[in-house]
Amino acid sequence: MEALRRKILELGKGIGKDIVKVDMFLNHRIDTALLFQMGEAWAEEFREEKPELVLTVEASGIAMAVAAAHALGDIPVVFAKKSATVVQNDDIVQAPVYSFTHKTENMIRIEKRYLPAGTRVLIIDDFLADGQAVRGLMNLCWQQEAKVVGVGIAVEKGFQPGGKQLRESGVHLKSLAVVEGIENGNIVLKPDDD
Amino acid sequence: MEALRRKILELGKGIGKDIVKVDMFLNHRIDTALLFQMGEAWAEEFREEKPELVLTVEASGIAMAVAAAHALGDIPVVFAKKSATVVQNDDIVQAPVYSFTHKTENMIRIEKRYLPAGTRVLIIDDFLADGQAVRGLMNLCWQQEAKVVGVGIAVEKGFQPGGKQLRESGVHLKSLAVVEGIENGNIVLKPDDD
Repeated sequence: MEALRRKILELGKGIGKDIVKVDMFLNHRIDTALLFQMGEAWAEEFREEKPELVLTVEASGIAMAVAAAHALGDIPVVFAKKSATVVQNDDIVQAPVYSFTHKTENMIRIEKRYLPAGTRVLIIDDFLADGQAVRGLMNLCWQQEAKVVGVGIAVEKGFQPGGKQLRESGVHLKSLAVVEGIENGNIVLKPDDD
Repeated sequence: MEALRRKILELGKGIGKDIVKVDMFLNHRIDTALLFQMGEAWAEEFREEKPELVLTVEASGIAMAVAAAHALGDIPVVFAKKSATVVQNDDIVQAPVYSFTHKTENMIRIEKRYLPAGTRVLIIDDFLADGQAVRGLMNLCWQQEAKVVGVGIAVEKGFQPGGKQLRESGVHLKSLAVVEGIENGNIVLKPDDD
């Protein structure tokens, strides 16, 4: 998506070999006009999949999920909560998410009634690297017998395996920008395929 | 705001004497159509204050801040992060938020560059009870010499002191629904003043 790519090249920062910092316009500080353009781009990609609900995980996925849900005709948004521990409660469903960055495993969870069986779900998140967060969200859907009809990502780290694995497993995945690598602090983007 | 009031009476749950559960449409699971109506209501209230940025705190304030910012012409959104500890970093500004519910004090923080001096700020949050979160956000603004031009809240607990204190101190506060109390599990709302 050209507008996001331009913004990444203008304001994004590459740190070390694998950190992509986009906090000035994508998370923490949000460029609202760009956000709603991103929502439109996801809606265009996934409209034919007829999603009925957008699922994400707190916190930085929420704004993007709202923009996508708005562009798809104001379908509901559900965000999973993170916690360090397993919660004992029959009303909730949870899944583990391993963080390679922090070398820790967290749980994500939602209340079961937010996600009825059979719901057609679009998963939205800000980053895709190893794919652990997306897999955790897919896990929640499987447990609830909801159908994941697509995965929309803002920034995919193309040099990490999550995107490739999801595509190979047949998931309809759309990343609005794909980072190929970081060279001397500069973010190198994959050419746009739009 | 009539649409929010109707939804609270239809789907909200009162628990004990002071817990108002609106997770099925306002936080965790979000009724996106209602969310954008709420954004329009805040925009109508605060447009004349000429806000340049919407400030909130993760996680459940984010969706509402985005809706308000969109209705105000896609001004930027900044959300403060929560953490249990004080972070040592010259690039950030932080403020304590005491939780009467959990009897704990947390810090909220943003990077200074998200909020330049002189910015006209609209604070948005989902709940107002004791007012600690709003005061923490106002504290961040004061430290940054930004101007708080208004505070927009979804659900104010009118039986707790935060709203009264903010109004008495001259803050332009707009709560879209005010809960007067909980009687036998039923949420009692203050008559609408629109």
